Amino acid sequence: MGMNNNLLESFNPYRDKVQATLKDIIDGHPSSLNPILRYHMGWQDENGTPRREEAGKFIRPILCLLSCQAIGGDISRMLPAAAALELIHNFSLIHDDIQDESNERHHQPTVWSLWGRSQAINAGDAMFTLVYLALIKLREKGISYEIIAGCTDMLSTACLELCQGQYLDIEYETRLDITVQDYLEMVAGKTAALIAVSTALGAYLGSEDEKVINDFRLFGKELGMAFQIGDDILGIWGTKESTGKSANDIYKKKKTLPVVYALQYSKGEEWKKLEKLYLKEYIEENDVIQVMDILNNLSAREYAQKLAAQYYYQALEQLDATGLDKTRQAPLRKIACFLLERDY
Amino acid sequence: MGMNNNLLESFNPYRDKVQATLKDIIDGHPSSLNPILRYHMGWQDENGTPRREEAGKFIRPILCLLSCQAIGGDISRMLPAAAALELIHNFSLIHDDIQDESNERHHQPTVWSLWGRSQAINAGDAMFTLVYLALIKLREKGISYEIIAGCTDMLSTACLELCQGQYLDIEYETRLDITVQDYLEMVAGKTAALIAVSTALGAYLGSEDEKVINDFRLFGKELGMAFQIGDDILGIWGTKESTGKSANDIYKKKKTLPVVYALQYSKGEEWKKLEKLYLKEYIEENDVIQVMDILNNLSAREYAQKLAAQYYYQALEQLDATGLDKTRQAPLRKIACFLLERDY
Repeated sequence: MGMNNNLLESFNPYRDKVQATLKDIIDGHPSSLNPILRYHMGWQDENGTPRREEAGKFIRPILCLLSCQAIGGDISRMLPAAAALELIHNFSLIHDDIQDESNERHHQPTVWSLWGRSQAINAGDAMFTLVYLALIKLREKGISYEIIAGCTDMLSTACLELCQGQYLDIEYETRLDITVQDYLEMVAGKTAALIAVSTALGAYLGSEDEKVINDFRLFGKELGMAFQIGDDILGIWGTKESTGKSANDIYKKKKTLPVVYALQYSKGEEWKKLEKLYLKEYIEENDVIQVMDILNNLSAREYAQKLAAQYYYQALEQLDATGLDKTRQAPLRKIACFLLERDY
Repeated sequence: MGMNNNLLESFNPYRDKVQATLKDIIDGHPSSLNPILRYHMGWQDENGTPRREEAGKFIRPILCLLSCQAIGGDISRMLPAAAALELIHNFSLIHDDIQDESNERHHQPTVWSLWGRSQAINAGDAMFTLVYLALIKLREKGISYEIIAGCTDMLSTACLELCQGQYLDIEYETRLDITVQDYLEMVAGKTAALIAVSTALGAYLGSEDEKVINDFRLFGKELGMAFQIGDDILGIWGTKESTGKSANDIYKKKKTLPVVYALQYSKGEEWKKLEKLYLKEYIEENDVIQVMDILNNLSAREYAQKLAAQYYYQALEQLDATGLDKTRQAPLRKIACFLLERDY
């Protein structure tokens, strides 16, 4: 996505370490699915030719590492846990692209569009399995089996929330009676759960203090909500260039926040028009323009921007609640800022 | 499947315990996906109405419990591990039914055919996640975190083999140059890996002796190969009644052993006829009859029966290799016999 990547450059040493750990785990388990997993990670093209190295943003692993570091933890020992978060994120993307019938991600064809739905299901399942093999590697770093079980518990619980969020996302596709409240419940699972467990896991690996771990979890949760709303705004008003995807979310009739807001608060003729458009089997270009007109009339973009900002400030307040001084908070504030200062 | 279920009745106390553990785990994590998981397990219909209790066969959990018991282990402590095996098996079935576009399982509509592909992917993912939450429950039974990590490692490694087997199964769909060797590699992953880890896990929870664990793994592996070949025979010559599925595997152009054998060993006109039939986009009733004629001419059924028997005897030899006396082996021999003495 067309973010200010310079802001992230200072995190490159972390990204390199996460990338190396991910390669260890994925290539350490050779199988016929390995080329598909490597393709999805952006390491090679569909023919197996290595691609000019461009690491993912690794938002979740970096949040995990920075959270641990903020409270004085040793991040060199926790890289497999950070990598596990990225594996969950990517397993979920592979399956999500099948569900959404998305043809492109990061300007490249999606796994299912190249290898078919069935192999994409398998590839996602294999990626998911690697999550747990990554966690076991924590032992080699001197992490106790008890803590490894704790990580397994936290990550699996987040995965269940993720599945629940995906369930609601799909269930909402065919419904027009979705409220902002329903939307927030869906996003809490679909996006915020994994970001919340990223920061919580970092804290867990650096501290035994339940309050600290919970404060970090809430920081991640609020940040995740803000992040998804920002993504929703980009999905409608972002350029193809900036989203890496091929089509406006409106074509897919996705119930993103601006649309949900419009469905809940539009009235009379406007509501009828929206209803008619969203009941169509296929949304065409002219329909998208009409929906965007309604969103503009209702200031749905401004509403979403305000709500994202609100979650962002709640996230920072939660970070303050940890009691860490601002110097220790700085890297986390920086990445939080990066996540929100996107070009919408 | 139309097996001799009386043979299994003596295992009912085990099945009841596994069933109760599965309910604890699945219902202990309520979500919107819970009704789908309960439906798949046969506990309720698609409207949520409880179904007259009919526990699954629970072959894998029972093999695990019996393996542990055979070497003197305490099975009351390992129920969550046994349940985890059944969760893996069922997550895999939910995804497999999407991949195969199977409409029926156990005489009921499959999950994807009722809830759609997308929700079935989610349901499978949730079921898979529960595997690891089940393993953590071993701690409550007094199993150490180290052993829990060992179980996690063994099960995850088996899941990767399962994904690899599924990959090959799908890859073979469009190929006609599959050999019996290729087939055996696919089945080793698709079926035998999970049965091998079932017996190995039971041994692991009852013994620290690597040789014992490995002997049990090999017993399960050979048994799993025999089991799949038996299933392949049923898939062609079994009745709908006995398979619980709606169509002969030949309709789906599945590369099961009798077909692979025929593709490899048929010659001249017969091979050309097979090739022509398997290159058709859709196989019709008359095609199935022609394929079965060729299989009969080549004695493909007898070949498959012989190979299944060979794996079965290798399994029993492996059981002897454990050094256990016949009395201790008896329950395992009984279930092995049950698995093979099916109506094909």
